[in-house]
Amino acid sequence: MRQSQLFTKTSKDNPADEQAKNAQLLIRGGFIHKEMAGVYSMLPLGYRVMEKIVHIIKEEMDAIGGIQMKTSALQSKDVWEKTNRWDDEVVDNWFKTTLKNGTEVGLSFTNEEAYSNIVKNFVSSYKDLPLYPYDFKTIFRNEIRSKSGIMRGREFYWKALYSFSADKESHDVFYEKSKEAYRNVYNRVGLGAYTYMTFASGGTFSKYSHEFQTVSEAGEDLIYIDTAKGIAINKEVLTDEVLAELNIDRATLVEKKAIEVGNIFSLGSKFSDPFDLTYKNSEGGDVPVFMGSYGIGVTRLMGTVVEVLSDEKGIVWPESIAPFKVHLLQLGDQVITNAQEIYNQLLENNIEVLFDDRIGMSAGEKFADSDLLGMPHRVVVSERSLAQGGVEYKKRDSDESTVLSVESLIQQLIA
Amino acid sequence: MRQSQLFTKTSKDNPADEQAKNAQLLIRGGFIHKEMAGVYSMLPLGYRVMEKIVHIIKEEMDAIGGIQMKTSALQSKDVWEKTNRWDDEVVDNWFKTTLKNGTEVGLSFTNEEAYSNIVKNFVSSYKDLPLYPYDFKTIFRNEIRSKSGIMRGREFYWKALYSFSADKESHDVFYEKSKEAYRNVYNRVGLGAYTYMTFASGGTFSKYSHEFQTVSEAGEDLIYIDTAKGIAINKEVLTDEVLAELNIDRATLVEKKAIEVGNIFSLGSKFSDPFDLTYKNSEGGDVPVFMGSYGIGVTRLMGTVVEVLSDEKGIVWPESIAPFKVHLLQLGDQVITNAQEIYNQLLENNIEVLFDDRIGMSAGEKFADSDLLGMPHRVVVSERSLAQGGVEYKKRDSDESTVLSVESLIQQLIA
Repeated sequence: MRQSQLFTKTSKDNPADEQAKNAQLLIRGGFIHKEMAGVYSMLPLGYRVMEKIVHIIKEEMDAIGGIQMKTSALQSKDVWEKTNRWDDEVVDNWFKTTLKNGTEVGLSFTNEEAYSNIVKNFVSSYKDLPLYPYDFKTIFRNEIRSKSGIMRGREFYWKALYSFSADKESHDVFYEKSKEAYRNVYNRVGLGAYTYMTFASGGTFSKYSHEFQTVSEAGEDLIYIDTAKGIAINKEVLTDEVLAELNIDRATLVEKKAIEVGNIFSLGSKFSDPFDLTYKNSEGGDVPVFMGSYGIGVTRLMGTVVEVLSDEKGIVWPESIAPFKVHLLQLGDQVITNAQEIYNQLLENNIEVLFDDRIGMSAGEKFADSDLLGMPHRVVVSERSLAQGGVEYKKRDSDESTVLSVESLIQQLIA
Repeated sequence: MRQSQLFTKTSKDNPADEQAKNAQLLIRGGFIHKEMAGVYSMLPLGYRVMEKIVHIIKEEMDAIGGIQMKTSALQSKDVWEKTNRWDDEVVDNWFKTTLKNGTEVGLSFTNEEAYSNIVKNFVSSYKDLPLYPYDFKTIFRNEIRSKSGIMRGREFYWKALYSFSADKESHDVFYEKSKEAYRNVYNRVGLGAYTYMTFASGGTFSKYSHEFQTVSEAGEDLIYIDTAKGIAINKEVLTDEVLAELNIDRATLVEKKAIEVGNIFSLGSKFSDPFDLTYKNSEGGDVPVFMGSYGIGVTRLMGTVVEVLSDEKGIVWPESIAPFKVHLLQLGDQVITNAQEIYNQLLENNIEVLFDDRIGMSAGEKFADSDLLGMPHRVVVSERSLAQGGVEYKKRDSDESTVLSVESLIQQLIA
């Protein structure tokens, strides 16, 4: 798209009321708008990133048998009372509101209850299992403070899948598959090298849950990494007993701050019991469904990419989730026709391109904007580049630029 | 997908607590789940329909220059106070909630304020205009009663585009384009023949607004249709003066109940004034931006299709928004292998198919389910059809079936 038609503009100055790097860079770049502390709107560039992350997660969930749906934002008190989580003493970050008739309703802060309540209508026999429904939705959490940008919002966008299995054995098979799917997600959004599957505290039905933790100074968690094994242990479960069980030597562990970018959890019958979510097994007995939960914060993941992959000049988007693959800069009003022609050629080759066709701006301003916005490939059209036979091409994460013919450029971009 | 793996099941009985046909059929078919009165979750089949409607609207909005974003659900009191619409006396169907620090926040009930507040940050010159941002989002309205199923929810899914133009002339050009885009949407979702552009009351900046009204006994509005001209007048503006101005003869008008499935509205500076949303014109003067709003309720449109296009047996989805194009029924356990093979052939030809592979069910039950669920093409594999050389093919909206070879079937479906 043409930058002259883009909704937003960049800003040189960091917003005074933001401490988190992700919020600073995303606001300066015009990716997000701050509605209030912990609540952000996605502007067109930010929306494009979010949609690409959503698409990657969706593909990975579908690949392991996930089936997408969309649960409501308003949730019923009756449903929540079944697990005793309606009580503000039990869940201290509820947002609630009130119907005209005085009935209190909740703004969904998680989905275990909603899913158990829905699935109960459709499960009666072991033949109905397993089920792996999921949705992407806006989640509301009434945080006391919100200083981490889009990494911990009062409102955020989130994927949650719940698994409903006949027994622990079939649950465990899916649980292992989900680990692979999660790994794929982090690899595909560019965080694979920084993200560790981390042993964390479990519950009644499993000794551990598994978090996916991305190493970052902006993280709120402390993890202990066994680099050789490629796994980590959350501080909360770091005991000699656990180390022995996982066959890990404490001396090899490296302590790092990390951001929790996902978690998977065996729930057992914690929710199926209160909802009476059972099925008839082949002998006719009533057996509680064995559940698991699998969450990823989409907006947190986006914020984490910014925290981890940006440099002093701005954001460095991985190609998989960049708003556009290419940033095409037209430098100087003399090259408008040539730049326009190259823009059309890129579009004809189905290359997503942001075309900085703005006139009356200096090269320095355009380069600074391009670094801030962070598209992976920068292509400059100037009188000099044309005289040298083409365009100046540079990757966002490299300092070296080369002059290429337009044909070679396209070959390289679609390779 | 295989029906045996589908999340949901059909039900023979109408839900006792639903009066609206759309809710009855959608719940019986397992398209939606009722969370509470006026609040529904989209189950996998319903989600597929909703996503297809979203995709059609998105294409039409993008085609006229729309640019997608995603505004927050929680909205700030400060922003709403600028237009005096925070007051519960002014807007009587607010949902509000409270931050931990006691600050009241609103759940977005519409988006004029949010957009004006955001766009103000990025518009300074006439060169920044026009802008046509839009988003799909969940909208909250605290309705006293909610008896119309997904046609009037306390929570619903919605597209709103706002136009920001330099003056009335350029606004009017876009406004006319938007009428065409809206017409395209209704044609594409199968409601074109029943939907009339309807003159309705305007505001300070235009005599009329334009509603799109779909004729249905379930409608809450009364419209007067000039069949020859293909337009209608909402009862609220039906005066002799208006008839004269539109050159319409009262005697030709036909009164009908109708469902408002969209509206477009010239806002002028109604919102740009309180937000001080101005730009410098070429002479350096400050001029208020001329705004327009363009809304479509996605879930209401889905409900309207069910109201208008269903028959006594169930829903009749238009192909464009059907969850699946084809419903493939395997009748009798002897044909499992053949049915499986045909299923694979359809998938290989990129045909979306729901495969009723359930065993131990009668033909009557499968036919009844198929009629209720409403896929446009029904394909039956039975010993009889195979003996006759193929499959029995029937359209949902026809009583005639024919036996086709699988090759002919595929030819017909991809034609």
